[in-house]
Amino acid sequence: MESGPPGASGPEEPGPCLRGVCGTDQAALASLLSRAEAEPQRRALAVAAVLPAGGSGERMGVPTPKQFCPILERPLISYTLQALERVCWIRDIVVAVTGENMEAMKGIIQRYQHKRISVVEAGVTRHRSIFNGLKALAQDQPDSKLSKPEVVIIHDAVRPFVEEDVLFKVATAAKEHGAAGAIRPLVSTVISPSPDGCLDHSLERAQHRASEMPQAFLYDVIYAAYQQCSDYDLEFGTECLHLALKYCHVKAKLVEGSPDLWKVTYKRDLYAAESIIKERISQQICIVMDTKQDEEHVGLRLEEMLKTELNHLKVTSGSLCHAGRDLQQIILEQCYNFVCVNVMTSEFEETQKLLNILKESNLSILYPVVVISVHFLDYRSVPFNQKMENLMQIRELAKEVKKRNILLCGLLIYHPQDQQKLQDSLRQGATIITTFIKERNSGFIGQLLVA
Amino acid sequence: MESGPPGASGPEEPGPCLRGVCGTDQAALASLLSRAEAEPQRRALAVAAVLPAGGSGERMGVPTPKQFCPILERPLISYTLQALERVCWIRDIVVAVTGENMEAMKGIIQRYQHKRISVVEAGVTRHRSIFNGLKALAQDQPDSKLSKPEVVIIHDAVRPFVEEDVLFKVATAAKEHGAAGAIRPLVSTVISPSPDGCLDHSLERAQHRASEMPQAFLYDVIYAAYQQCSDYDLEFGTECLHLALKYCHVKAKLVEGSPDLWKVTYKRDLYAAESIIKERISQQICIVMDTKQDEEHVGLRLEEMLKTELNHLKVTSGSLCHAGRDLQQIILEQCYNFVCVNVMTSEFEETQKLLNILKESNLSILYPVVVISVHFLDYRSVPFNQKMENLMQIRELAKEVKKRNILLCGLLIYHPQDQQKLQDSLRQGATIITTFIKERNSGFIGQLLVA
Repeated sequence: MESGPPGASGPEEPGPCLRGVCGTDQAALASLLSRAEAEPQRRALAVAAVLPAGGSGERMGVPTPKQFCPILERPLISYTLQALERVCWIRDIVVAVTGENMEAMKGIIQRYQHKRISVVEAGVTRHRSIFNGLKALAQDQPDSKLSKPEVVIIHDAVRPFVEEDVLFKVATAAKEHGAAGAIRPLVSTVISPSPDGCLDHSLERAQHRASEMPQAFLYDVIYAAYQQCSDYDLEFGTECLHLALKYCHVKAKLVEGSPDLWKVTYKRDLYAAESIIKERISQQICIVMDTKQDEEHVGLRLEEMLKTELNHLKVTSGSLCHAGRDLQQIILEQCYNFVCVNVMTSEFEETQKLLNILKESNLSILYPVVVISVHFLDYRSVPFNQKMENLMQIRELAKEVKKRNILLCGLLIYHPQDQQKLQDSLRQGATIITTFIKERNSGFIGQLLVA
Repeated sequence: MESGPPGASGPEEPGPCLRGVCGTDQAALASLLSRAEAEPQRRALAVAAVLPAGGSGERMGVPTPKQFCPILERPLISYTLQALERVCWIRDIVVAVTGENMEAMKGIIQRYQHKRISVVEAGVTRHRSIFNGLKALAQDQPDSKLSKPEVVIIHDAVRPFVEEDVLFKVATAAKEHGAAGAIRPLVSTVISPSPDGCLDHSLERAQHRASEMPQAFLYDVIYAAYQQCSDYDLEFGTECLHLALKYCHVKAKLVEGSPDLWKVTYKRDLYAAESIIKERISQQICIVMDTKQDEEHVGLRLEEMLKTELNHLKVTSGSLCHAGRDLQQIILEQCYNFVCVNVMTSEFEETQKLLNILKESNLSILYPVVVISVHFLDYRSVPFNQKMENLMQIRELAKEVKKRNILLCGLLIYHPQDQQKLQDSLRQGATIITTFIKERNSGFIGQLLVA
């Protein structure tokens, strides 16, 4: 009945528009464009988004409001902004934060290079924050660079996994019906208690739904609703669809959403979000080899092993030979994992080249990039001890690139004559590579791991 | 308004009754005993639990039913059984699984040494499975070793974090009111759609609650309700409290539960559960040193560093000197993390002793136990290369103890004369130790990490 797990249900986590290429995945973009062409009126739809982010996060049990809690060292709200700004047809994004978080929010926008974001001051309740966001989009703001949209999307700062598809569905449904909102089946039965704390009655689960975000409205509808609504609504209300119904008699269209829409509410949700993000950016590995394609090379066998052992991962080969053109393409496609095989060249020559290219790109702004520098130990040529000692310089290298959000470790693979033993070493090497990529933990950077 | 995060809100994850000591934490046990003494009638309460575990887990998007999905290589349902069996006053636990999972379930009970568990065949729906569990507890089963309880707790196999406290509350409330169930505030607004897929109305969030598990009933009440209820109820119903109300006119007492009661429903919940479990078993580190307490010892400085850097962790010192008595106590208290400092003795002598003690204990049956073998490198005495080569035998050692669910890695800490540099090495060592303990990933076992 329901769609797949969050880690697998959507396109891979795209970044913001990067070097002119919109970060949404190719298939989704093509589908969106074809829909837009089929219905030209939607292409020109002026859409803005409002994100209330003034909450204190008291349910989380941690002092930092949950929207500012770090995931892989980046605040949660930045992931949500990224999810919205990659959608090219959302023109403006207005975020409402409390006065005390204003500077922090501006810092986040600058550091993670978010675009099309305006910050306004939050109110003391969620509804007041949304109202402030809507006011900033009103036509009668003389000194605003924002302009009034036709449709406004309201989303939560703590729902980072929203997909373009559901944003598109609520926006177009709002254009047609005046209001629209995502819904999900109920996970628990809902009951009504009597005043003495006993069960009064339970609700038929099939006849009810959980109201989730995003929601969308014709701007004039929701702005009028907020202008008319009472102080009681603004203080104690939680549901925008209800305001549109009560004050503008607009019955919202309900859109079935995916499990991805869930809201980061408790500490466990932060754990889940981190795991999902780690999983999404670990789906692709690029192997860079210091060799020409046609050469006999033990790195090719490592690549084979990674492909066999990890058939769910996409393994790409990159090359630094031809002025790094291939690699630039792979970076553009947002691959966050690199295995650099050093066989022909001495020590870290190839790894150093790769690190320089990564440092010049903007790839590690949003996510930590993993680089594993692979070396082979052939007892015939170099003694183990000498090889180890030479390779220990990786510690200094790792410390330096950590400043640029690049997580570097070394992997020394034993290369015996015996083919079966070599296979075993390569298999263990593949395990270590995937472990480091999946955990993405900076505690092990600079280590020289041995397979 | 709500209590803290799941990782911090309860006692640390206790194991099942171990060597005669009940696994629940001391404070909770004392509180329970005092309550039981104050109200002697409750002490003798005959309580059983029924766990429906016949679900297919279709919402998870994975082929394995979610109750059998592994967390740290152990099936989820085993954690839930552990949470119930550590409660000494629950006499019998009846699990209902489908025919095809019957053997797997029996294997889980044997492997993880679960006690007081009976397995019955699940029905095709949740209600039918519960009914089968209740039938197994009925007095008129001639060949059953089970006896009819006064109160029966019904819980979900996929809610592994249930605390003794809430079990006690629902059981005693059921004794008084005939039925009781845990509730939680709603996270989302609940709405009712009209037939055309638009919003009909939204429910006042403050007047409704989510019905969660555990629930408890006087056995005679819930058994009578199931005997009377219709096929439609058995096929399409989800709420036991509703059956007690409808057929026995018993209004259930509602008990506020903690956020821990949440149900593993989606893949993200498995991620969250894994993180919570890892966090719970990483709260205590035992440092074992090959020295007498009064000696000048660099291990003591590492201990200091761990205490300073990780002030939220409990750091205990163990000793192998006096026939390991201290250590036995620490193992009984279920510490799953050991740092073994080898300074005075050569190479792995002390680590090997510790591993032998751990292998003889049952500690690693339920959770992977982490052991970090720490060594110091003093350039004056031994050259780096030679030390490294000696220590590489840790790989074989790690492979061997992995079979017993012990995760071993080595840590070589550089020990220079310069005090500031030594502090830096110790700090990095502490980081590596905590990273390995927190990640608890077998991909890095047998590695010799360098600080």
